[in-house]
Amino acid sequence: MSRIVLYMSMSLDGFIAGPGDDAQHGLGRDGHRLHDWLATGGADPVSYRPEGPSAQVFDEMLATGAVLTGRRTFDFAGGWSGDHHDGVPIFVPTHHPPSDGPRGAAPITYVTDGIESAVRQAKAAAGDRHVMMHGADTAQRCLRAGLLDEVEIHLIPVLLGDGRRLFDNLGSDHIELTLVRSIDAPGVTHLRFRVDR
Amino acid sequence: MSRIVLYMSMSLDGFIAGPGDDAQHGLGRDGHRLHDWLATGGADPVSYRPEGPSAQVFDEMLATGAVLTGRRTFDFAGGWSGDHHDGVPIFVPTHHPPSDGPRGAAPITYVTDGIESAVRQAKAAAGDRHVMMHGADTAQRCLRAGLLDEVEIHLIPVLLGDGRRLFDNLGSDHIELTLVRSIDAPGVTHLRFRVDR
Repeated sequence: MSRIVLYMSMSLDGFIAGPGDDAQHGLGRDGHRLHDWLATGGADPVSYRPEGPSAQVFDEMLATGAVLTGRRTFDFAGGWSGDHHDGVPIFVPTHHPPSDGPRGAAPITYVTDGIESAVRQAKAAAGDRHVMMHGADTAQRCLRAGLLDEVEIHLIPVLLGDGRRLFDNLGSDHIELTLVRSIDAPGVTHLRFRVDR
Repeated sequence: MSRIVLYMSMSLDGFIAGPGDDAQHGLGRDGHRLHDWLATGGADPVSYRPEGPSAQVFDEMLATGAVLTGRRTFDFAGGWSGDHHDGVPIFVPTHHPPSDGPRGAAPITYVTDGIESAVRQAKAAAGDRHVMMHGADTAQRCLRAGLLDEVEIHLIPVLLGDGRRLFDNLGSDHIELTLVRSIDAPGVTHLRFRVDR
């Protein structure tokens, strides 16, 4: 059955972007440090693929059958020019769909009737594959609503000190997780958790 | 050579205590969740020792030759009744030494002339063993001053949502780390980092 899996690169102090992230600097100041692990395969941003143990995690990401992304992440990434990977459908929960969004190989759906609807539509589109989720705000909303199934953290051995936190605004109810896999790779530790209900 | 090693149990969202930590509730509301991994060996708080892969980390902690702890942590823990482990010396940086502190097997030194002095004294006391450091504020001060050598995070698979963060107030200069060991154990992942200079 399709699962919603959050994939995020996070510093040990919990940041997914440096300070001052905006449309021109999607990862904030020096936030690219968090994505160095992706680039070991080459400098070309289109065809890069990490070598070594990270390749497995990278390939799993690209085997997902739909993308569910927050509007901020979507905009900051330029909507991936309308194709995140392999033309799989992209779902963007938002109250204000753009009149002229990016157009590429992927069908893009702006979901205006809430996060639950977005999750339902993304799962249906992914079929028997998983849904890749991106974005801190959307992840937080899904966690609060009990809609997130798994979390794959690419833990980066750096303290950024400031920026945008992945886990924030969650309230004070505990959410228990279970570690289902960990992979040590050069410059990154991949930690996969199941969200317990 | 003696190294300063920070040992802290931390939730995936970066908390080392729940909300409302004070002298009566040192770990805050439900913060004891973060220390469950220590108790698998038995219920007795004096003689507990985890079983399985965590035992190695636990034994390393107790092989340290001195303790350097923040005043808050020290007070909240009741000064460990004057003996953290094996009577090794305890150093507490503070501007206001208590007139009547806990008395036990361990010599306790209240260091009033700064964190650098506390680090120097603790290392000297530990000899060729390492120094166990405890406490978020003290860790942050040591990180900012470049005085921390290693960090052993006991990463707990839970999102606490609120409480006291371990890595906070660090400024926005990056601090690079290198993962030197990871151990998956029941209910905890032990991640040991070297602080790069």
